[in-house]
Formats: sequence, C-alpha cells, structure tokens
Amino acid sequence: MDELVGNVLVGQSGGPTSVINASVAGIVAEALNHVAIEEIYGGLNGVLGILQEDLVDLASESQQQIRALRHTPGAALGTCRYKLKRQQDFERVLEVFKAHNIRYFFYIGGNDSQDTADKISKLAKEQGYELRVIGVPKTIDNDLTGTDHCPGYGSVVKYLAMTVREIACDNEAMGQGDLVSIVEVMGRSAGWIAAGTALAKRRDHPHDAPHLILLPEVPFAQEKVLEDVRRVLKRERYCLIVVAEGLVDADGNYLAADSATDAFGHARLGGAGEALSEIIETGIPNAKVRVARPGLIQRAAAHAASKTDVDEAYLAGQAAVRAAIAGENDKMVTLVRGETEHYTVETGLAPLSEIANGIKKLPREWINEDLVSMNFQFLRYAQPLIQGEVAVPYDNGVPTYARLDKVRVDKVLPAYEV
Amino acid sequence: MDELVGNVLVGQSGGPTSVINASVAGIVAEALNHVAIEEIYGGLNGVLGILQEDLVDLASESQQQIRALRHTPGAALGTCRYKLKRQQDFERVLEVFKAHNIRYFFYIGGNDSQDTADKISKLAKEQGYELRVIGVPKTIDNDLTGTDHCPGYGSVVKYLAMTVREIACDNEAMGQGDLVSIVEVMGRSAGWIAAGTALAKRRDHPHDAPHLILLPEVPFAQEKVLEDVRRVLKRERYCLIVVAEGLVDADGNYLAADSATDAFGHARLGGAGEALSEIIETGIPNAKVRVARPGLIQRAAAHAASKTDVDEAYLAGQAAVRAAIAGENDKMVTLVRGETEHYTVETGLAPLSEIANGIKKLPREWINEDLVSMNFQFLRYAQPLIQGEVAVPYDNGVPTYARLDKVRVDKVLPAYEV
Repeated sequence: MDELVGNVLVGQSGGPTSVINASVAGIVAEALNHVAIEEIYGGLNGVLGILQEDLVDLASESQQQIRALRHTPGAALGTCRYKLKRQQDFERVLEVFKAHNIRYFFYIGGNDSQDTADKISKLAKEQGYELRVIGVPKTIDNDLTGTDHCPGYGSVVKYLAMTVREIACDNEAMGQGDLVSIVEVMGRSAGWIAAGTALAKRRDHPHDAPHLILLPEVPFAQEKVLEDVRRVLKRERYCLIVVAEGLVDADGNYLAADSATDAFGHARLGGAGEALSEIIETGIPNAKVRVARPGLIQRAAAHAASKTDVDEAYLAGQAAVRAAIAGENDKMVTLVRGETEHYTVETGLAPLSEIANGIKKLPREWINEDLVSMNFQFLRYAQPLIQGEVAVPYDNGVPTYARLDKVRVDKVLPAYEV
Repeated sequence: MDELVGNVLVGQSGGPTSVINASVAGIVAEALNHVAIEEIYGGLNGVLGILQEDLVDLASESQQQIRALRHTPGAALGTCRYKLKRQQDFERVLEVFKAHNIRYFFYIGGNDSQDTADKISKLAKEQGYELRVIGVPKTIDNDLTGTDHCPGYGSVVKYLAMTVREIACDNEAMGQGDLVSIVEVMGRSAGWIAAGTALAKRRDHPHDAPHLILLPEVPFAQEKVLEDVRRVLKRERYCLIVVAEGLVDADGNYLAADSATDAFGHARLGGAGEALSEIIETGIPNAKVRVARPGLIQRAAAHAASKTDVDEAYLAGQAAVRAAIAGENDKMVTLVRGETEHYTVETGLAPLSEIANGIKKLPREWINEDLVSMNFQFLRYAQPLIQGEVAVPYDNGVPTYARLDKVRVDKVLPAYEV
C-alpha cells in the first residue's frame, strides 16, 4: 500500500443527531495517530461550506473540546440539506480539495450524503486526483442498508423509550378510563423510531405502555384504532399511543393532511399527533386527549444518549480513518453485529454506491399480528442499542457542550456562487 | 402538647410532577419515626379515593419501593382533578377518617388541594374530631403564595433549560438565517415555567438561546415579535423561541384560539406554538419553522430532575409529619430561603386558608425591558432551584421507577356515590 500524504477534510451533513459529533471526535483522534495526515480540516455546513471554501482547522481545537464533542448534540461543524446536483458543483469541490491538498475526505451522513461522497470519489478518480473518500453512517432514521444499524438511532430510541415510560407514570396517575396520551415521533417513511419505543415496556409486561404503536408501514384504519383505544382504556384506564409523523392511510396519504381536508376543513394541521387527537375525540366523545410532540428534542437529547450509540459513532469515525489510511476508497463504514447471544459489534466497509441507492425497511415480520406492537425479533435487535448511559458534565444545573473555536483556514480560491 | 395517637393518611392531588412522589417518601420515612403514628395509609386518586374508601397500606410497601419513590415521576398513589364541592362530600371524608382512625392527614397539591385540606380541617374542628391536617406544596406552576418556591418547579425548569440548550445545538448547526424553532411550554396563567428556560443561557452570554421568551404576562404584539425574530435571525442565523401555552393578546384572548378564528378560520389549533408558527410563516415568508411541544414530558422527566428539587420535596414531606406531631394543624409547609448569598432553604408553615386563596405572580420587574428575556433578579431566584442531578437507576437502558403493591385496606363503610 502506498502512503498517501496530505490533509483530511471532515464534513457533517443532514439532520443532526445526539452522536454525529462523536464521529467527528473519533476521526480527529484517530487522524492524530497517522503521520501521513498533515492537517485536519472541517468543512462548515457540509458541502455548502466546502463549495464556499469555508474550512476550519480542527487540529488547533483544544483536546478538551474534541473530547467534549463525544457527548455534544447538534453538528458542531454545522450541516446542511443542500444536495450537490450541478456538475460544476462537483468540479468546485475537487478544486477546493486540490487547493488544500485534501487527500482524505470523511463525510458523515445518511443516504444523500453517501451519494454525494460517492460522486466526489468517482470524479476524483476520473481526474486522476488521488483521494480517499470514506463515508460514516449517521441517521436517527436507521434506514441505511449495508449496516446492522446507524449511529444516532440508539440514542433517539433510548430517549423516547425513557420518555414513554415517564409519561406513562403520569398518565397512570391521572387515568380514569378516559385519558388518551399521544406521543408523535419522527419517521416520515419508516417506523424504526416509533417501533423503538417498544423498549419502554418491561420484560414480560406486554400491557405496559406504549399500548399502541402506529407505524407508517401499517396503513391507518380508523375503526380498528378506535376499537384498540377503547379496549386499552377499559383495561388500563389510560391509553398511550406512539404515532410516527409519517402515518398514512390505505391510499398512502399522510394522516395529518387527510384529516385536515376530510373531517375539519383545515388547510393544515400540527401533524399526525394532532390529527389523531381529533379523530379520537370525535370517535370517543368522552376521551381526554393530550398530545406531546418532542420534535427536535428527540434527536438532540444528548444528556440521555445511549452509551453504546456514542461509542459506536466514535468507533465508526476511527474506523473511517483507518480504512482510508489502509488504502480504502469510495466506501462507507458499516456496523456488523456479532453472531453470539452477547451483543458485540465490529466495523466493516460497503461500497458507497450500494448505500446511496438503498433503503432499509423495518421488517414486516417484526411487527406483531395486532399491528400495534413489536415482537421479540425486533426487541432482540433494538435492545442492545440503547444500553448504557453517558456521563454528561453539568455546570450550574445544565449540561455543558463543546463549542469549537473554528479557526478559519485561509481561502485561496475565488469566491463561488452557490 | 398532647400526643395524638392514630393513623396517617397521605393523598396526592392535581397534575403530577417529577417530585411529588418524593414528598410521599418523605412523609412515610418520617412517620416511621413516631410511635404515636400507628398505620400509614395512602388514599388512591386524591379525594376521589378517600370518598370511595380506597385506601392502601403504605407501611406494608417494601423500603426499596418507598426509597424508589424519591426519583419516580407521576403520582404513585394516583391523583385526580376532582374538587370537593358538596357539603355531603366533606362529611363523607370525615366519616372515612373516623372509620379508619385517621388523625393525621397530609395532602400534597396546589391551591385547590390546599383549599380542600383547609375545609376538611375546619369541618373536623366543628365536629370535635381531633385531626391534624398539613398541606405539602406541589406544582410545576410555582404559583403558591407563602412559599419561596414550589416543589416540582425546579425539575420542570431544569429539564426545559437542558432541552433548550440541546435544541439550540441542533438549530445552530442547521440555521442558515431562516430557521425559527419554537418550544411550547406549560403555564396557562403565569410565565414561571417559560421564564425558567432563561437558565439555558450561559452566564454572560445574553445572546444564547432562548432568544425570545413569550410570557403570558406580556400581551402578544405580532409586529414586535416578528421584528424580534427578524433581528435574531440576522444576528444568530436561527431564532429559538419559548412560548408559554397561555400566551394571550392585548384583549386577553389565548393566542391559539385567536389565531384560529381570525386568521385561518380553524375551529381549534394544536396550541400557542402552532399558532405562533403560522403567524411567523405568514409574516416572514422564507422562515422555516419547527415546533416542539414537550407536553406532559416536561413534568414527568424524572431522569433529568433537579436534585435540589427532589431533596426539598422530600424535606417538605418530612416537615409536614414533624409539624403535625408537634401539634400543628390547618397549615401548609413552606420553603423559606436563607438570607445569605449561598443558597439555603428551611421549611416553615403558613395557614392553609392563606395559601388556598392566593396566587403568586411572576414579578414584572424581573422581566427585562425587551419583554422577551429575564433579568438577574429572576436568575438569582431560579438558578439554585435546578442545581444537582439525580442518580436514577437504569435497567436494560431505561430508568426503573417504583411500583407500589397497593395492598388495600379493608372497607368498613357502605359504598358512596361520587
């Protein structure tokens, strides 16, 4: 293997998670181990910053700050939802890379980001510019193929399982046979996150909350749901429902939009939780419905992150650097689960092009026949991902999180219009 | 002082908090110290359970469970919003007390509950039945008079300050000058809770999130808020707004209801957050608005409770028992802050009748002139209340909370129609 001497560029892309910064920390820490790596740069706001040559010097950050990244939510380098489309954008990225002798590019993100990374890698090859591109998986949606699970998922699910268990204590105290409590969680197209709230149930207590999990994979059937709610209210005196924001009816229409036009003439609604609330209040007139919508809270709740998730995100960052140093290119780091009963994980690699075009669906056979709860196969899959707590430092009663100095790297190219 | 020998009854009332069970734990633990106290009963679901003679034997619970109550959210005895009104209801309560030789009644709750406790105490006196009634303060709303602050408030505010700081990390990463993030918090008539999110700001960083706190005390002025949002977007590239659910306009109408009828013809809306979102999207067309509505999560998030709050809730429970044993009656335990710079707290007592009829407002002079932030007087008041973290035990990645056995006390009276 040739030793490729040059600089590293790290970028973060897409929606933040509780652990995307842990991957940056892993990359920076590992990069320091390799003499072939000269400078360690971060690109601000994903590809947007790269296009605009907005680079910062990560090696000049204090070790304290890099270490603190391990437990800091958000995306410390900034992120974007900008998708490179024009050929000239890709050309510009390479121009920036060449200008700063970037030879190692690590891009932390979901499908779209891996797609971008793939195209950059291929263009470099075409142009004969030696560049090693390794993607690092990140998404609370847990929908990347080729990897057992995605960093970010364990923490969102741990936080929501905790929250469901806590709200259940509150609901149980208040329930007089009429209390319906709805928690709307993220998940536009897949129910991975909603399904994960099943971890709130104690082992061998199937009647624990959440009583009904409404997944985007299961078309919403109003009469069945109302029947389910009535049954649970009778049994438990309250009914806690987790609903994925992307819940759809049999025709594939979002519940929110649907309810808005059909039942109440609204132009828009708060979301699936609000829509479901109205349906239940109409269908079960004595019901008292409360809706919680954690929104961005769920993906930023780093104080309640899964230690397993944080450690794996860090590990994925380290593995990306090692793979690149070993000569790998155009790959994404994957998490590979061991075969034994006892949960273990190793990293692997998969071609970026495969990751970019796939979506991992929640297996239908992991949903129980009642269509509102998850079976042991799902629990066996998800349970290990939420294990362990993170010791976040507190100052004056509130967690303290990293703030990078972001010392700018001098620009050498003309400005670029995005 | 006469030694009054007999049984204890504890009840919980109104909305749960993260620490209302800590007060029960304090009462039970302290009751065990006094030989005059024979049995320790809990009334299920507040006065509802007392009316129906639904009592449980708290002394038969394991010490583990009583200890676990200290960190368990919800209300382990159940609670209710039922308000005693009819004279016959009060008579029935005394009948139940007499039947079970209840001589010590501890009622944990807010204004209404203290009012109920007051009336029970006075009726017992009228009837010559020796009974000592001590109220224990509880409310996230922090609106009880006579006490420096209320158990429950510190924890809701700590959780929300943490959440605002975490969401701010996420928002900062995504903000491109157009991101408006709204967190709707509880508080129908007073802004104590919304104001408390000011604790998310680092010391000497007034520009930290939350950028705008919209309090029920300050009538909503659409143009000013839009102007404020535009200014913050320019400065910070994102704008995080905390809005109290009870935000009202200059005529005293709830923002939610108002927006619903005037601007969009909706019959109802999700709440102040949704209403504000629509106003901002209309007034600032390029704004991308995200709404989080923690709902019940905020008052149940015991994993993020304030240790100070938990300890004080426990202390208030202990103090109630000691006061009753010492011969006090018809009083509520209060929290009295020490005069020194270093925060200290002692318990005191105030007449129930005073508590029942008062409401403590957020002082106007604690709101800055900009009307959207809190000054140092508020911070000095609130900062000590969120100090310290609670070591909640985890099992399989999720906190474990107490579950009482609730061994029923035999009924001796005829059934009663509520």
